[in-house]
This record gives sequence, C-alpha cells and structure tokens, in this order.
Amino acid sequence: MSPFTGSAQSTEKWRHLRLATDDGVATVTLARPEKLNALTFGAYADLRDLLAELSRERSVRALVLGGEGRGFCSGGDVDEIIGATLSMDAARLLDFNRMTGQVVRAVRECPFPVVAAVHGVAAGAGAVLALAADFRVADPSARFAFLFTKVGLSGGDMGAAYLLPRVVGLGHATRLLMLGEPVDAAEAERIGLISELTPESQAPARAAALARRLAEGPALAHAQTKALLTAELDMPLAAAVELDASTQALLMKGEDYAEFHAAFTAKRAPEWRGR
Amino acid sequence: MSPFTGSAQSTEKWRHLRLATDDGVATVTLARPEKLNALTFGAYADLRDLLAELSRERSVRALVLGGEGRGFCSGGDVDEIIGATLSMDAARLLDFNRMTGQVVRAVRECPFPVVAAVHGVAAGAGAVLALAADFRVADPSARFAFLFTKVGLSGGDMGAAYLLPRVVGLGHATRLLMLGEPVDAAEAERIGLISELTPESQAPARAAALARRLAEGPALAHAQTKALLTAELDMPLAAAVELDASTQALLMKGEDYAEFHAAFTAKRAPEWRGR
Amino acid sequence: MSPFTGSAQSTEKWRHLRLATDDGVATVTLARPEKLNALTFGAYADLRDLLAELSRERSVRALVLGGEGRGFCSGGDVDEIIGATLSMDAARLLDFNRMTGQVVRAVRECPFPVVAAVHGVAAGAGAVLALAADFRVADPSARFAFLFTKVGLSGGDMGAAYLLPRVVGLGHATRLLMLGEPVDAAEAERIGLISELTPESQAPARAAALARRLAEGPALAHAQTKALLTAELDMPLAAAVELDASTQALLMKGEDYAEFHAAFTAKRAPEWRGR
Repeated sequence: MSPFTGSAQSTEKWRHLRLATDDGVATVTLARPEKLNALTFGAYADLRDLLAELSRERSVRALVLGGEGRGFCSGGDVDEIIGATLSMDAARLLDFNRMTGQVVRAVRECPFPVVAAVHGVAAGAGAVLALAADFRVADPSARFAFLFTKVGLSGGDMGAAYLLPRVVGLGHATRLLMLGEPVDAAEAERIGLISELTPESQAPARAAALARRLAEGPALAHAQTKALLTAELDMPLAAAVELDASTQALLMKGEDYAEFHAAFTAKRAPEWRGR
Repeated sequence: MSPFTGSAQSTEKWRHLRLATDDGVATVTLARPEKLNALTFGAYADLRDLLAELSRERSVRALVLGGEGRGFCSGGDVDEIIGATLSMDAARLLDFNRMTGQVVRAVRECPFPVVAAVHGVAAGAGAVLALAADFRVADPSARFAFLFTKVGLSGGDMGAAYLLPRVVGLGHATRLLMLGEPVDAAEAERIGLISELTPESQAPARAAALARRLAEGPALAHAQTKALLTAELDMPLAAAVELDASTQALLMKGEDYAEFHAAFTAKRAPEWRGR
Repeated sequence: MSPFTGSAQSTEKWRHLRLATDDGVATVTLARPEKLNALTFGAYADLRDLLAELSRERSVRALVLGGEGRGFCSGGDVDEIIGATLSMDAARLLDFNRMTGQVVRAVRECPFPVVAAVHGVAAGAGAVLALAADFRVADPSARFAFLFTKVGLSGGDMGAAYLLPRVVGLGHATRLLMLGEPVDAAEAERIGLISELTPESQAPARAAALARRLAEGPALAHAQTKALLTAELDMPLAAAVELDASTQALLMKGEDYAEFHAAFTAKRAPEWRGR
C-alpha cells in the first residue's frame, strides 16, 4: 500500500463491473452479458473511480479489461444512456461526456499497462476503451465499430479523434470515425489496431498471460514506458529526450537495473522486483 | 443560406474549375484535361475562394474533388507557374506559396467532408490536394507523386510534411517527400494513403456515392467529426477529451440524436436532418 | 567550407568510429565488430561531436551510418556502460542520458539526410539510431529490438517513445517498447519501420547508392525537406503551411529551381548544384 494514502477509503464492492486481483494483476470484467456489456452511467463511473483507486493504491502492476459473454462491449446502452441524455440540460450533458473522457484519460494515465482482451463486438464507447488500452489482444471474432455518427454524434468521442489517428493514421481514422462501420479482426490487424491476434477464444487467456508477464517483469520500467509513450505524443522532440534522460537516470538508480547487471554477470535470469 | 451573410456576393462563374451542386453535394472538377489538369494561379485562387464561399454559405454537406480526362491533377503547371515564379520578388513568392497553403487549410477546415476521386496521376500539388481530403477514393490507375524535390523545391509544400507523416507514418513520408517517386495504387493502399480502392474507372462514381451518403446522413455529426480530427492532431489528450465533451453535449441537443432514439425505439430507420 | 567557422578546430581523428568522406557523402561505420558494435561512452560522444562538426562545416550532403561485421549495432555495451553507470551519481547519470539524447537530436536535426544501412542486430541504442535516421535501408537479416525494458529501463530512451509512434503508430510502438522483443525484417517492413528492403547483404551498397543520389541531387531541397519533416511533427497545421511558404519562396530564389526550368524547357536532364 502506498504511503500516499489519505482519508478516502477503498471501495469495497464495485456494483457495475467485476474486479479480481491476483498478485499484481487486476482483471476487470464488464459483466452484463445479456446486454452485450452495454455501459451504464454506473459502469462509466465505476471505471473512472476504480482506475483512480488502483492508481493511488499502487498494488496493481498490470490490468486486464475484458467482457463476459458474446462480446467485449457494445458501448453506451441505448435505453439507459441515450434515452436519459435526451432530457438532460447542458451542464449535465457536459458532466456525462466529461466523465467518459475521464475514463479514457484514466486508462492512458494510470501507472500500469492496460491489456484489453477483445472478442466479438467492441462498439462505440467499447471500441474507444479498447483503443485507449496499451495492448489489444483480440481473437478472430473481434469487430471494432466507432459507430458514434450512426447515432447522430461526433466520431470524436472520448478522445477517439485524438487516439485513433495516432494508432492507425489519419486516413484510416477518418474513415472509421466518420462512417462508423465495423472493422473485422483481419483489417484491424492490417492497420495496426490489434496488438496480438490470438486463435479463436484465446483472447482472455493470452491477455491474462501478457498481464502476468508484465506484472512479474520490471514493472516500474513498464509503467514509465507507458507514461512516456502517453506524454511524448504531446511533446516536441527536444522535451521528449529531456524527459527520457531524467527517467532513465532515475531508473538507473533502481533495483531492477542493478539486478539485470548482476544476473547478466552471473549468467542467470534476473529476478525482477518491479522497482 | 446562412444568416451570417455579409455584403460579399457569391461568385457567379468559376472560371478555373467546374462546379456542380446537387442537393447538398458539390462536385468540383479540375477541367483542363489537355494539360492533365495542371494548376494555374487562377485555379489555386478559385479553390481557395470557392471553399471559403461554400464554408460560409452552408449549403453544402459534402464535396467531391476530381479531375477530367486521363488523371486527377499533375500539379502546378510548369510553364505558367514555375516559369512565372522565376521572375517574382520575395513578397510575391510568399504570396503565391501562402495561397497554395490556404487551399490545403481550406480543405482541412471547411465544415463538410471532402472526397477526392483519384484516377491516374496525382502529382505535386495534385498529390497534396488529395492528401488533404478526408477520403481518397482511388482506382487501380491512381499514382501519387510528391515530386517537389524533382523541381528543386522542398518536399514540404502546402502542408505535405505535416500531413503525410500523420497519414502514413514518418518513415514512408520521408521516403515519399524526399525522393518524389510515384506510389502506385497497391502501395498507396498498403501504407494507408487510399481510403477506398475501387474497380477500374469507378473512382468518380464511388466518390459521388460516398458524398451522397455523407450528405444524406447526420451531416452535422460528420462535420464535427472532421473538425475534431483536424483540431485534435494539434492538441494534447486532456484538451481533446474536453473538446469532445462539449461537442457531444451540443450534438445531444441536436435533432439527429433525438431522431436516432425515436427511430431505434420504433424499430425504423432514422431520417437524418443533418442538424 | 562554411564562412560561419569559428575558433573550434575540426577533429583530426575519430577514435570511436570510422569516418570516410567522398564528394559530399560521409560514411560513418561503427567498427567494433568483435562486440557487435556495442556503443561505449566514447562512441556516443563521437557521434554527438561528429554530427555537430559536419553540420557546421557544410561539406556533407548525405550520410550513411552502418556497422561492421555481423550486425548494425547491439546497443550500449553491458560492461562498459551498464557496469559503469551503476556507480554514477545523479548528475552524471543525467549527463550520460542527455548525451545519448543529443545524438538522436543531432541525427534528426543535421542539415543532410541520414541513411542507416542495417543488417543483423539493431538493438537498444542501435535500434534508436536506426529509427532516428531518415532512411532505414535493411536486408532480410535485419532485426530491430528496443530492448530497454529487458535491462530494467524505460522503453522511452533517446527519444524512442517520441519517434516510434510517429513511424509505426502508437499500438505497434507500445508493443515494441514495452516488451522489447525483436522485430524481424518482414514485420519491420509491414509496419513501416524499413524504408527499403534489399536483397541479402545488399544494405551497405544500396544505402551508399541512395546517399550518392541524394548528394548529387538538389541537396538543399533534400535538406529542407528533412528539416520540415522534423519540425512539422511539433507544429500545428497553420504554422506548418506558413513554414512551407517561406521555405519554398526561398528555394524558388535558388539555383536548382531555375536549373530545373531551364533543363525542362531544353528537354535535358537538370544538373543539380544543391543550392
């Protein structure tokens, strides 16, 4: 537990998602399979709050995000979200849309890698959640659809117009966000949207294995790699190399760097401590 | 017609290009086929002015840009442009090069998607015009060549050194801009430069169909998707999600979002109004 | 020789790398084949200083960077660098890591294109050197590995977390930098990390031919293309087109632009002067 713990208590029960933690790996499962894991206000809020708690508690070194049942996540629930927002005033609409953006920022800014395990539909907000993750481990059934324009909204939702061009390039991103059409696993792999294409049904197991490997490795090095990838999208080169220099100077004072050298010298495998 | 109309009159006749409008879709054709649609000072100026007029008049929801004859556009005319610029002073050279950059900014910033219909040669300024479009619908005869260095100029012309790395990545962009060699349709598709590869000779028809579909769909949502894709290339993530939030809050007050929900509930197709 | 030459003298002998120059083309060879060209403090310092000297002397129009023996460069030497850094204080660690970042900045900012000739291993700092080059000419034996996390450090080293997402996209870059696993030539070509894939053993010859061609062409146009590609990664579109306009206005006052027009008019090949 981090010493930087204040009065705020840990949430004892997450009502809108399922959380399991196992020795540094958190597994978050969207568990509303009868609705293809459609997101509710509560689910967005839980994702926002859970990532904030895990970030400050510092017990997690890698996180898997998956969905129960036939698909990953079908996006915002048509009845519970679209219906409800129709009668909201401007301030509340901003609150809602800021909350969803905060979830994406939390995924990008949390101090551990996030591995999305994608099978079946990843649509709307579900597609953006997967996009915001560090790794998209997907099986051949995966289907991404940024279908915001299909409900009359901007394809730039939850940072998608920022993130997608930086993952697949502006040409593909324009097509995907403007038209909202599904991208199957083969195309997603071809354009760089999938990190690892697995055999059928193997996305959860392979995502778990990757998270386990990340958690048992030099976890601080992984966390800083993520932090720099996130920050340096928004920095000029000169600032980026300065950030790299201070990051590496710090990590060269760390235990894992010394352990690597000791292990290399002794011709044995390093025993990572993650710090 | 927009209420934000001042004293400036609409141009009655565009002398350096052909314009047709049909129920929200504008079709702009470079029509100098005997010169492979080589651009003249007048053609650049007309593109600049036409896009500004269409942007403020607000009658257009999608635009197709194509070329008559054997190719899309061979770029600036060697005699009429290169010859003339050789005797210009510095201020006038800046004026010319700013004008060409204004055309590219206008393509990126106009409040409707631009679909380039590319067949045959898209060279020099022609390649950048296609690059600046939101969609490049191209047939197998398409050939892109950013041949500025071949005339002794910088490959960074009209924003190409900004746009191309964001579409195909810095490695390919360096090769294409530095060497100026032609990229055939197969390679252009492989590296993400083509949005839709059509059968032979089908680029104009498929581009027109795409523009029609965009114009008849939720056009304000499309316009905002484009605006956000353009703006968020130049923004950090935190600002991007804030822009997304206010954009979506606004669109959630729009007619098309309500129409989607009504149609979904009634199990019928939405009738988009584009607002 | 440039008139902007001060009191600083040219280095007569580079002790940590091999330099050959031939009519505008510099060839820099990492020449420690018994250690797979592992980099020492001296090698980094020589790369930093050499690029600075070549940049101010202005005799070079293109540079080839290659490695002698079985591979391109295996990265920082485990004994001479990792071992030594373990006992350094914070200020010295910053000095070291800033120096490596300065090498990458020098590769990106020097006023001539850099062509990396890659065969065999390009690992760690070696992979980033190749990444920072303008062209990666590689043969099928090439293998890139950004293996920083494997030694307990951040994958964001020497600007890699800035450059790699801009070359191959954020998804691939995250995978490569976080996991540190080797990328073979076929994958490197697929994701856009290789500029030109050559037949077996042909990387040095093809890199030399490319550098020769660049040096004998409109070299100022090439240099400005590189400068704009580098600068415009960090600029908004409006500023980029303004930079392009002033660059082209300047080059339109140059000798090569006039020569192109004269040659075109006379139906002969241009004789480039590089200015």
